[in-house]
Amino acid sequence: MIRKNIGFKEEEVSEYGIKFLKKKQKEYGDTQELGASETIERIFKEHEQMAELLKRQDILVEKIYERFKKDLDVIRVRTGYADKNTRIGLELWNGFIFTNDQQNYITTDEYLTKPVQVATQKVESDIASYRQRKLEREKKNKM
Amino acid sequence: MIRKNIGFKEEEVSEYGIKFLKKKQKEYGDTQELGASETIERIFKEHEQMAELLKRQDILVEKIYERFKKDLDVIRVRTGYADKNTRIGLELWNGFIFTNDQQNYITTDEYLTKPVQVATQKVESDIASYRQRKLEREKKNKM
Amino acid sequence: MIRKNIGFKEEEVSEYGIKFLKKKQKEYGDTQELGASETIERIFKEHEQMAELLKRQDILVEKIYERFKKDLDVIRVRTGYADKNTRIGLELWNGFIFTNDQQNYITTDEYLTKPVQVATQKVESDIASYRQRKLEREKKNKM
Amino acid sequence: MIRKNIGFKEEEVSEYGIKFLKKKQKEYGDTQELGASETIERIFKEHEQMAELLKRQDILVEKIYERFKKDLDVIRVRTGYADKNTRIGLELWNGFIFTNDQQNYITTDEYLTKPVQVATQKVESDIASYRQRKLEREKKNKM
Repeated sequence: MIRKNIGFKEEEVSEYGIKFLKKKQKEYGDTQELGASETIERIFKEHEQMAELLKRQDILVEKIYERFKKDLDVIRVRTGYADKNTRIGLELWNGFIFTNDQQNYITTDEYLTKPVQVATQKVESDIASYRQRKLEREKKNKM
Repeated sequence: MIRKNIGFKEEEVSEYGIKFLKKKQKEYGDTQELGASETIERIFKEHEQMAELLKRQDILVEKIYERFKKDLDVIRVRTGYADKNTRIGLELWNGFIFTNDQQNYITTDEYLTKPVQVATQKVESDIASYRQRKLEREKKNKM
Repeated sequence: MIRKNIGFKEEEVSEYGIKFLKKKQKEYGDTQELGASETIERIFKEHEQMAELLKRQDILVEKIYERFKKDLDVIRVRTGYADKNTRIGLELWNGFIFTNDQQNYITTDEYLTKPVQVATQKVESDIASYRQRKLEREKKNKM
Repeated sequence: MIRKNIGFKEEEVSEYGIKFLKKKQKEYGDTQELGASETIERIFKEHEQMAELLKRQDILVEKIYERFKKDLDVIRVRTGYADKNTRIGLELWNGFIFTNDQQNYITTDEYLTKPVQVATQKVESDIASYRQRKLEREKKNKM
């Protein structure tokens, strides 16, 4: 790198400027202290990078997306399996019904069998009491 | 403002540093050119502001995530159960078919049994009328 | 409202100021033109509102959440049903197996029955060809 | 800058307007007080900048939504199928139970059959070992 004198001679800077420079010298210089000019140059470079980061909305958008990525991936994969497995389940119902030559059929609107009724009530009551416990836990955490 | 000499004497800076400084001098100085030290001080101030803005962006990203967290948690947990339970369902199909020594099998492409057909139609018509009611509710709320 | 003379007498404003004021007068005055002072006051009020909106990150967070709300609601409700229904499905398996006194059981790791195998292959091939068609559609849309 | 009289003569403004103007005069004028017209012009400029920033926020919200759209669409569609197919599954259970005239029923709380128990354990152990492998992969990627 060709270097030449930039002429920071005898210039006067405020106490603020000196303080900021010292802070940055410490921040950048891990092992040995950097010179003033070198530090200023690094500030310049950082300056450009930050200006770029702030100007570009897409970088913020990407930051947000990355923050959600892990959760979204889990959900996407799980819904993929749930989707696929329920399809396979229907295939198996179809094959089973075919094999057993079941012709008879009734919808739940026409007649809801006792077992389906009981199973539904059991699960709904499980979900309701789970919600109750969750609400109480949240209440306790707020106190 | 008390100003004192910061000692930028005879230091050597790269061409990059000179170019950046000149650019900023032009940017800041509307009518008259600013001195090098003054320009550097303004860069320092801008630097602090940008660092603050970037920190604010990170806080924003986290706030957004926190805002969605409750919904995402619910969805993640539910898809976890749906995934798991459909897997168990397939295991039970497999065990049941094995126990009954069912060899016969037909896919829904080859033959769609009447019960699967009727069940599908019933559910599809339920979903269609639910959507209809939802649309009407939304229309009413807009009026 | 007590009104008194604010003393905008004989002041001189730039062309920019006049143009902006005229634009706002038109924007605010639906039926009749507003006076200059009245317009300026409305600009002041809007100014305060906008400053508030920009200052508060939580308003932006809420805007983002609202934008996603409809999709999240749909997903949350659907996963709720999928979760619940698969639980009911397992209950029904349990009741059915109990009723039939099925003792025998084998996992898919030990033995994968032909029907489960065929059903899985059929669904996987359906999903694969759906993806293929989707990719082709996306390619076409990009052209 | 060409300046001409905007005609703010003898107009009447409310106390609110006067108060806001005074506040802004103080805010803008570091050393010397700005004139009313000059202050108003600066408010106008700030106004335009804020309107721009708010418009940018709306664009940002839309960009964020667009970034998530593809994942959300996949999840929405998959949960739609999982929801629908599990409903059809329950319909088929109901029809099957009706056809076989199964009256007997027991919930998993009352009695958990061996097959359901084994199937649940098998799937839970599959999920646990999948998680283990995933954690190890993530650890490796970090190194």
